[in-house]
Order: sequence, then structure tokens, then C-alpha cells
Amino acid sequence: MYSSPPALEKLVQEFSKLPSIGRKTARRLAFYLISGDREKMESLAGALMEAKAKLVRCSHCYGFSESEVCQICVSPGRDREALCVVERASDILPFENSGIHKGLYFVLGGALSPLDGITPENLHIPELIKRIEQENIKELILALGSSPEAESTALYIDRILVNSPIRRTRLARGIPVGSDLDFIDDVTMLRAFEERVKL
Amino acid sequence: MYSSPPALEKLVQEFSKLPSIGRKTARRLAFYLISGDREKMESLAGALMEAKAKLVRCSHCYGFSESEVCQICVSPGRDREALCVVERASDILPFENSGIHKGLYFVLGGALSPLDGITPENLHIPELIKRIEQENIKELILALGSSPEAESTALYIDRILVNSPIRRTRLARGIPVGSDLDFIDDVTMLRAFEERVKL
Repeated sequence: MYSSPPALEKLVQEFSKLPSIGRKTARRLAFYLISGDREKMESLAGALMEAKAKLVRCSHCYGFSESEVCQICVSPGRDREALCVVERASDILPFENSGIHKGLYFVLGGALSPLDGITPENLHIPELIKRIEQENIKELILALGSSPEAESTALYIDRILVNSPIRRTRLARGIPVGSDLDFIDDVTMLRAFEERVKL
Repeated sequence: MYSSPPALEKLVQEFSKLPSIGRKTARRLAFYLISGDREKMESLAGALMEAKAKLVRCSHCYGFSESEVCQICVSPGRDREALCVVERASDILPFENSGIHKGLYFVLGGALSPLDGITPENLHIPELIKRIEQENIKELILALGSSPEAESTALYIDRILVNSPIRRTRLARGIPVGSDLDFIDDVTMLRAFEERVKL
């Protein structure tokens, strides 16, 4: 039985480990990189090693940063009274791209899931509570996902702060802008109807 | 305007350069790698550098190899009278996986395309002709693609060898095994009909 050269096989295997990359795509990527200009491999490897060396978690918000505290947390132009809580660091980008949120962020690191052993202590919930106690936060925007785990995480945080004067909000659910009603799933339609607003 | 940490941005850009990886997938891959176990980055970077260092083109068939002449070309068990000509090194794998071809391979490196400046000299056609002259090849299987460029490349090679006793063949075209006739495109149907075989 024939097998590819080991170095090629290993590269295919490494690519296959990535999310959404199947074996065929992994092979295509490997052949693309080893064919033609070999510098492409070096620059991808370099970017990987640089990311590994430089990127750390911001000690204030747990987003990614190249310094102990990230650009957003140190920025003097930010509204320090509004804190947007997200599940993952990658969730910060859509807010920043739209430019709608002028406040700060806090990355929980996931959502509660007792069956998978993910308790408040496995997330950054204690750090969030501490931050709320120490800082002058007026509004907490719980921008978590819509999975049952994310919803119960938002509810859990809301309960902890039930006697706090901090305003707790979550993102509106409803029909995406520009979307045809035909293509809306039932749950979204239900939410959009329940949460309808006065004209 | 916010931008991600430079090391993260660079990693996203490097992934975006790969075929079939758009910006969103590139971001997902980058966040996957920087979150959790950092060793993943090192092992992918290592595989890339190893591939760059070790993989060379086989001097006999132009497939990928870790030695000057590849495993297939040096194998004593191979039928040295049958030579399968393919466009790219990655085209060798499907033949080897099916195990149907016991002979050797030759990678052209592409297909003729005079408009794009790809002439016989840009491919390994002179080397193929030289190999045919020097070796005892009885059958040349032109396993090129079905693009117009690939078809004219096969025709070009066939013409060169018009006075040669070497048998020239190409792969059969027709209905893929297990495929429903409903899903067959018109050109494939035309070919399958034209090249119908006696029962």
C-alpha cells in the first residue's frame, strides 16, 4: 500500500485537526502550500509561532492582547460604565466592527453547562462579580448566545445581581434586517412576535 | 477604529491566503488555534517547516518525495512499461488509493495554455519525451483532466508520438458508478453515450 511522503502526510494530518477542515480540504491545502512558492509555508509557520509567542489573555477582560492589558481596556476614550459580557474573545469583533458599543468587554470563556462539568468557577464569573464590585459599572449588557446554556448563564448572572442597582440588558432578538419573513425559523418568529415593540 | 492584536491579524491574513479559506473561516481557524492548547500552533508550524525542508520533487517523475527519487519510482515491484501521465502531483493519490495502476507516474506540472503563456517547455513535456525515448515504455496512460487545456495537452502529446509504437490511452469518460442518471450533466451524458460499450 502506497503512502505519501511522511512530511506531506503529517502536514495533511495537522490541517485535518482544524475545525471545518476535512481530509480532502486538508490535502488540498497541503498540496497548495508545497507546490509553487515555498515561502508561503514559512510565512504561515512564522505567523503561527508569532501568535503563540505574543498573544496572551488580557488580565482585565480576558480578550486576546499582546500586552498584559488589552488596547480596549486601556483606551481612555471608552465608556467605563457599560460592560458587554460575551462568551468568547472572538465575539468582541462583531461589536467593534459595527462600532455600536463604546464601553468595555468581559469574556466569560464559555457558558455554564453543569452536565459537562462547566460551573461558574470554570468560567470567569467570579472575576466578573469582583470587577462589578470594584468598578463603577452602570450597565451590564449580557451578549451571550442563544443556546440553552448561554441563556441560563445570562439568567445566572442576572440572579446574582438581583439586588444590585446595575442595569442588566441583553441583545434584542427578532427578524434580521433585510431578511425575508419566509426564511425566518419558528423560534426566531416567536421571539420577534413576543418582543414586538410599539411603533 | 479597533483592530485585533497584530499577531492575531497576521495569522488571520495568512490563513485567508489559502485556497477555499475565506476571511470568516480564517478568523475561526485563528481563534481556534490561539484558544486552548497552544501546542497545536507549534505542531502545525512544525509540520509546515518540516514539509518545506524535506519535500522535494522526484527527479524522475516530478511527484513529491523526501529523497531524490520517490518511493514509487524506485519500487522494484512496479510495472515499468506502463506510465500514467497526470497534471499535478496530487493526482497520483486517487490512482494509488484504488490500487488499479501498477506502473509508474509522470507529473506534467499543468496543462498547455498558450494564452496564459504555458507552452510545452513550461511543463515537463520535453522530459517526458526524453524518458519515453530512454525507457522501455509500452503504454502511456494520459490521465489528464477534462478541461479544454488538458484535452489539448493530451492531444499534443499523442501527436508527438504518432509514429511511435507506444500504446496511448486515456481514462474512460462516462456515468460515475452509483450515480443516478437524473444528476448527470449534459456533457457527461453525451460522452457516455458516444463511448458506449458493447454488452
